[in-house]
Amino acid sequence: MGRLLYDLAGADERLRFSPYCWRVKMALAHKRLAFETVPWRFTDRDAIAFSGQSKVPVFMDGEHTVTDSWAIATYLEDTYPDRPSLFGGPGGQAVTRFMNSWGDRIVMGGIAALIVADVVPNLAERDRDYFIASREKMFGKPLDEVIAGRDDGVKAFRASLDPMRAVLRHQPFMGGAHPLYADYIPFGVFQWARCVSAFELLAPDDPLWTWRERMLDQHDGLARKAITREAITTG
Amino acid sequence: MGRLLYDLAGADERLRFSPYCWRVKMALAHKRLAFETVPWRFTDRDAIAFSGQSKVPVFMDGEHTVTDSWAIATYLEDTYPDRPSLFGGPGGQAVTRFMNSWGDRIVMGGIAALIVADVVPNLAERDRDYFIASREKMFGKPLDEVIAGRDDGVKAFRASLDPMRAVLRHQPFMGGAHPLYADYIPFGVFQWARCVSAFELLAPDDPLWTWRERMLDQHDGLARKAITREAITTG
Repeated sequence: MGRLLYDLAGADERLRFSPYCWRVKMALAHKRLAFETVPWRFTDRDAIAFSGQSKVPVFMDGEHTVTDSWAIATYLEDTYPDRPSLFGGPGGQAVTRFMNSWGDRIVMGGIAALIVADVVPNLAERDRDYFIASREKMFGKPLDEVIAGRDDGVKAFRASLDPMRAVLRHQPFMGGAHPLYADYIPFGVFQWARCVSAFELLAPDDPLWTWRERMLDQHDGLARKAITREAITTG
Repeated sequence: MGRLLYDLAGADERLRFSPYCWRVKMALAHKRLAFETVPWRFTDRDAIAFSGQSKVPVFMDGEHTVTDSWAIATYLEDTYPDRPSLFGGPGGQAVTRFMNSWGDRIVMGGIAALIVADVVPNLAERDRDYFIASREKMFGKPLDEVIAGRDDGVKAFRASLDPMRAVLRHQPFMGGAHPLYADYIPFGVFQWARCVSAFELLAPDDPLWTWRERMLDQHDGLARKAITREAITTG
């Protein structure tokens, strides 16, 4: 039996935009583990009910089911210790949990507030009501209002990334000379945005722009080759 | 020749409050390396001119001089690889640089804005003008004004620590089961505040309060035994 990832898809099933699934796909590529994906939509609850979860990523390794991107990353590290490490040792794993927590709040929270409305037109028709209702509840207002001030909001978002930016003055990746899971955490969120939105989160002279470019090139350009809304809308 | 740390001191030379020196002292204790300290004041430029720096920490290991808390930590890790690791491996060291960067901005920046004026009465007379002028320049206003709204400001500060708080739901220290340098980074700042200010940065029911207590107990209570302003003023 192979490895299978239930992967969030849009109206076009080639559009795979979940930030958490991207973390997992980059981690699998890092470990050089072959895998297949199943396109999944928010409303496909029944398809993953076996996992006990209502959201992806849901990952099956043979008969083994693992859910939650962090749990999948540590599962891969424990199960395939002979493959390239995702954490670079036990201290790395412990401290990367902080990066995970920071990435979820500052990077995911920050980017969501800037592009969440852009997700909607990319969604499968049957997913839209669920997405809009759940995200409006999260933000406490209509999604157009959430992103309304984003030309100003992006400045505060960029400033909030200073801790990453400062690291890049000393090393090309959060993981040091090579990317580790500490890179895949924030990168997954940028890749989400890249898949569904034209809004420019970073300025071209930002060291984070260059880092993102380097990340897009990793693993034979896995993320760069991904189908984005732009590729779909421009044919 | 032994190990010597130039350690920022207050009017009472037993009061040692530098957050960066605390990171180094905790790192040295973690490595189980004996060291002595020399009390140093901001205006004692000549005493450390040999190092090329105008600020502490300045650390001498025999004939070797190292400055800057991060550089000292990596020096200790490289020079004493047989002692307990400060990073838990190369991945840990790379990702801890992110914690250092986050700690300087969010923890140090956040706490300074809440307690900077409290530092002044603890300083040696000859340091006060320098400290006030340099910090007022940093904040762009008088120090009393910086801390004026702190009863409200502390709420945003506490919220900014959510990424650490979330990690503590899974492990007792940023470093995992035991503290690593990733803990000493934010802890050094809390210890700075503890030495010079009565302002309560954390609520007693905060998991970070408990973490701070655990950190105070490390290395035979090195930080808990330190002389604070309270010990001095109450005799």
